[in-house]
Amino acid sequence: MKLLNLSQIEDIVTAASKEELIQCIESAFIALSDGSATVPPVGHLGFTDPPGDVHIKYGFIKGNPYYVIKIASGFYQNQLQGLPNNNGMMLVFNAKTGESECMLQDEGYLTELRTALAGAVVSKHLAPKVIKAIGIIGTGIQARMQLELLSWVTDCKTVYAYGRSSEKLAQFCEEMIEKGFDVNSCDSSAEVAQSCNLIVTTTASQEALLSAEDINPGTHITAMGADAPGKRELSSDLLAKADLIACDSKEQCIDHGEVYHALKDGLIEESSLVEIGELISKSVDRSPDAITVADLTGIATQDIMIASFVLAHR
Amino acid sequence: MKLLNLSQIEDIVTAASKEELIQCIESAFIALSDGSATVPPVGHLGFTDPPGDVHIKYGFIKGNPYYVIKIASGFYQNQLQGLPNNNGMMLVFNAKTGESECMLQDEGYLTELRTALAGAVVSKHLAPKVIKAIGIIGTGIQARMQLELLSWVTDCKTVYAYGRSSEKLAQFCEEMIEKGFDVNSCDSSAEVAQSCNLIVTTTASQEALLSAEDINPGTHITAMGADAPGKRELSSDLLAKADLIACDSKEQCIDHGEVYHALKDGLIEESSLVEIGELISKSVDRSPDAITVADLTGIATQDIMIASFVLAHR
Repeated sequence: MKLLNLSQIEDIVTAASKEELIQCIESAFIALSDGSATVPPVGHLGFTDPPGDVHIKYGFIKGNPYYVIKIASGFYQNQLQGLPNNNGMMLVFNAKTGESECMLQDEGYLTELRTALAGAVVSKHLAPKVIKAIGIIGTGIQARMQLELLSWVTDCKTVYAYGRSSEKLAQFCEEMIEKGFDVNSCDSSAEVAQSCNLIVTTTASQEALLSAEDINPGTHITAMGADAPGKRELSSDLLAKADLIACDSKEQCIDHGEVYHALKDGLIEESSLVEIGELISKSVDRSPDAITVADLTGIATQDIMIASFVLAHR
Repeated sequence: MKLLNLSQIEDIVTAASKEELIQCIESAFIALSDGSATVPPVGHLGFTDPPGDVHIKYGFIKGNPYYVIKIASGFYQNQLQGLPNNNGMMLVFNAKTGESECMLQDEGYLTELRTALAGAVVSKHLAPKVIKAIGIIGTGIQARMQLELLSWVTDCKTVYAYGRSSEKLAQFCEEMIEKGFDVNSCDSSAEVAQSCNLIVTTTASQEALLSAEDINPGTHITAMGADAPGKRELSSDLLAKADLIACDSKEQCIDHGEVYHALKDGLIEESSLVEIGELISKSVDRSPDAITVADLTGIATQDIMIASFVLAHR
């Protein structure tokens, strides 16, 4: 079996064109929505001593030469031993013969990449035509990657950022200024929202960070955080106020996305939800005052497509 | 990640003692029955063009240093291209940190081995004390391995064998005679059963090959074949006649083992089933005329234990 390590995978991604990468994840959204993807329920192993979680995500897309099995683990006490908490790899197999094609020892990089690309794809199709300023809520790796990849779909470099830790926020601002963004540090999520008509939330929050009253008309919000039950970033009244709620996967968003909370509170209807894969194939007409929300939980077709992309470009 | 290929794995197994290997699979049965194993439902991907199946089996045993993910595929038209139909690997991870420890590229060998060891373990604990003759129904790789590993637990070398293809049967007999067995070729399953008080069925049959009337008092039968819905080797009346029905996993046997058919026909009761893991810890007293049946569907703890064994002995 061939192996590609993180540095080899990064080289392949760096050499690829932005358009190809964007298109790769557009295809992932479409495959989930048009029925061409087979994505069984995620496998899970839960450990208690020490605590840890292993997730096995797998599936294939009709017509794609590969099937992919992603194994991701989080053992939360690893850092006490100086080890990374998270581990990950993707195994790529030939979908016609079952033969193993490649092991991508990406250490979780491809998951970060496909997640950031998903944010860029959503902004490309749903954000206002003219972005006045980008709001980033969250200061982690994914916050950095979201902002960097947004520059593939918008020329706007004006950024307002907020994070709970003022230290991490300062570091985030400094780093992103070095990368050419004009970053303003804010004292609250609401302050971010005052100045921005494209907002990305990318935190591990379990409480709403933005409410209906925070958001100006004509704003798009992409919420990346709610990838598991218990997490949320947007209040139910914000979803109720939205003119459009776009899900990466209706099934997953209903189960544990932002949408889950708003449905439970009885403030939105399942019938109003649309999938991003459906929106990509037609152009979305936003009225100037529309508020739109994208609820991203992370979908296995993104893993399949990004892994296939790496293999096709190696 | 470290890799072990088939030949390296075979060397490790060959160097190990028979007692250790038998004990390894005894522990697998016990772990399944005493609640120390966590074995989620098997993951499955089904392909149609060309037809193929991928199974992902995974789990861990409390106190074991590893968790194991086994990926096994069968693409049934591979042979037309001169490729093996079946592929398999086991991935071994550290159960305390999630770090990948080793990839066992065993090409399915460890599954054959743990299956044959399971047969030997069952005979050690359930077969009559004095084996007059061993019956083997089936002529494939697993039939060969079952017979070879039975010699680890009994001195009997007298064998009666039957298989549907007379050509494959002749080849089986010839090979096993070379290995020191006294093998008699039979014209039917019933003819095998006439002479033997230990019978192993190891076929892909979808119909019963042995009925109650074929079996002499004082016989043990191990049925290996029913590892998926639709398969069976023993008639329901044979299970009804048995004094003991031992399952590797009650849950799996009820779902798709020999037991499934006899339950469906209303000829046995769920309450009469026992698990092999429960029997191993106590000694089983067979009356001289007892008929006993073991229904083996294959259990993930065997994969976990055999993979852990290879890692511990590398």
